[in-house]
Amino acid sequence: MERNEITNIRLNEDGTAIIILDQSALPGETKYVELRTIDEMCNAIYTLMIRGAPAIGIFAAFALYIVARSSTAANYEDFREDVFRNSALLNSTRPTAYNLINQLRRMEALVDNLAGEPLPAIAEAMRREAESIQDEDVRMCRAISENGLSLIGDGFGVMTYCNAGPLATSRFGTALGPIMLAKELGWNLNVYSCETRPLLQGARLTAYELNAAGIDCTLICDNMASIVMSGGKIDAVFAGCDRLARNGDVANKIGTSGLAIIARHYNVPFYVFCPTSTFDPECATGNDIEIELRSPAEIKEMFFSKPVSPTDVKCYNPAFDVADHELITAIVTEKGIFKAPYDKTLAKLL
Amino acid sequence: MERNEITNIRLNEDGTAIIILDQSALPGETKYVELRTIDEMCNAIYTLMIRGAPAIGIFAAFALYIVARSSTAANYEDFREDVFRNSALLNSTRPTAYNLINQLRRMEALVDNLAGEPLPAIAEAMRREAESIQDEDVRMCRAISENGLSLIGDGFGVMTYCNAGPLATSRFGTALGPIMLAKELGWNLNVYSCETRPLLQGARLTAYELNAAGIDCTLICDNMASIVMSGGKIDAVFAGCDRLARNGDVANKIGTSGLAIIARHYNVPFYVFCPTSTFDPECATGNDIEIELRSPAEIKEMFFSKPVSPTDVKCYNPAFDVADHELITAIVTEKGIFKAPYDKTLAKLL
Repeated sequence: MERNEITNIRLNEDGTAIIILDQSALPGETKYVELRTIDEMCNAIYTLMIRGAPAIGIFAAFALYIVARSSTAANYEDFREDVFRNSALLNSTRPTAYNLINQLRRMEALVDNLAGEPLPAIAEAMRREAESIQDEDVRMCRAISENGLSLIGDGFGVMTYCNAGPLATSRFGTALGPIMLAKELGWNLNVYSCETRPLLQGARLTAYELNAAGIDCTLICDNMASIVMSGGKIDAVFAGCDRLARNGDVANKIGTSGLAIIARHYNVPFYVFCPTSTFDPECATGNDIEIELRSPAEIKEMFFSKPVSPTDVKCYNPAFDVADHELITAIVTEKGIFKAPYDKTLAKLL
Repeated sequence: MERNEITNIRLNEDGTAIIILDQSALPGETKYVELRTIDEMCNAIYTLMIRGAPAIGIFAAFALYIVARSSTAANYEDFREDVFRNSALLNSTRPTAYNLINQLRRMEALVDNLAGEPLPAIAEAMRREAESIQDEDVRMCRAISENGLSLIGDGFGVMTYCNAGPLATSRFGTALGPIMLAKELGWNLNVYSCETRPLLQGARLTAYELNAAGIDCTLICDNMASIVMSGGKIDAVFAGCDRLARNGDVANKIGTSGLAIIARHYNVPFYVFCPTSTFDPECATGNDIEIELRSPAEIKEMFFSKPVSPTDVKCYNPAFDVADHELITAIVTEKGIFKAPYDKTLAKLL
């Protein structure tokens, strides 16, 4: 197992706390925090100290082990109630990503299956289950990365959205996985990372991971995706997934749907990287997926002290772009409203 | 004349300086600054203390008057050289908006037409010309606002991009003009203002202007436009214009083209408000328009101290959205790559 190479989620020496890399402090600070109480652990998910659908699922499994281990229940019924109550608390932190509820259910099922066993033995089994979830995630990421590699080639331009790299998983990542593998093969990719407002996971985390891996990365604001694609620089868009419905609708970080629409306009393939742990068979379509609404303060205030990206990352910062006349319903001037064909109608202004 | 109602660009008492409302300090601070030297005036444009295509054109005309008035030239040739050299400096600050070069050329033509006149008389004529440009802008804004009003009705949802309100012009604004007029008529509009990264003109200026006018305004990040439109909340998108090509291609704030593509996807009309002063007959298509590239620091660092919007503005902050399966080229999982029809192919995961 590669567990000693996994640094973003692990147990401390005596198994009484989870140590995570605080992603909300990146890229400025590499800070590890120890979490012991359910409040600390729920808060870590809500405040994005730990984020990324697969990583949240793994974290929640370990969190439930910590809950079980520190339970003061004297019998199985009380123990089970303790575990399930805290599982509900963890689940309430973020509603959209399927991995969270998926892995919590798996841990709950284990507790049910071990009814009657000594409580320390159940807790120990929960620890092994959480480790299995993490190990499976490493294998999943490796497999998804290899599958995704077939979609690109040396010299490709790839646009990424939000962060679906090692930080969002255990290792390799999902949407960033093939890019990391391509680097190992010696391919040169040109990666454009969308910053991903409001919390800038693309600037703070993806640009950080790509820079650290020595991969050519250019940071853009989300509203620059169109001009970059219009220039023919992008051969594929790679996005992650928080929940996959049965009809293929994908819930992912806010902005994914707009990016997909823009990619379609420019005939750029739009690939979504979905661990099967994000597949929710209970959702027929995306309409069944609850969308998390977060605090207005994330938009109105700038949470992150400057700089918000690696200081040496490349940026592309065009101040304007051109909207093709085909997309414009009407042009309103002080001399009247003009409609297509504009080359004819606007000639009156000459 | 409504000049005493125009507060964003005016001359000081003795006509030796331009006083502008420093838009880079909004919404936190209402700060007026006096500009006297060409360096101060060029810097004011480049740093967006004054911005908005029409406003920049007006400002540059007054700036050239200040240059002419303070010229120490002893004869017409030297005076003309002074004016034209500083006109080129002003023009070099921002290449995309057509108003800047358009109004500078108008001022230069005036100087050429008055060759031989006493230098103070030429300077005084330049002052009157700058005031005419400003007055024409007020009338243009009023007319464009009335024209635009025909495109909406009471209860409409309107999405705006960047800032094309009073601050960007002299009064009323262009794309915000009909919204301001609708308010006077007692209509209730629901306006969604896109924040407009990287410099947040939508958050700092449009939300500020709409809030001040008592118009219902919800601030969103640019990448939230798709989810808002998908919910059927938007009846029209209103955008400004920095340069209009003969074929109808429109250069406007970065992100406009992506927003137009998304609006087309959802069948939402996309209206561009173009003063005829933005119409560049020398540009056959948008390919002829130079796109300004600005500093990476605008993306990598957060220039604005918090808050970056009016503190009491409404926000809509969904953390996720749903990408329709029709837009997804392939779904990559650790178990293989799935393509449409997803309802059939994904069933293998059940």
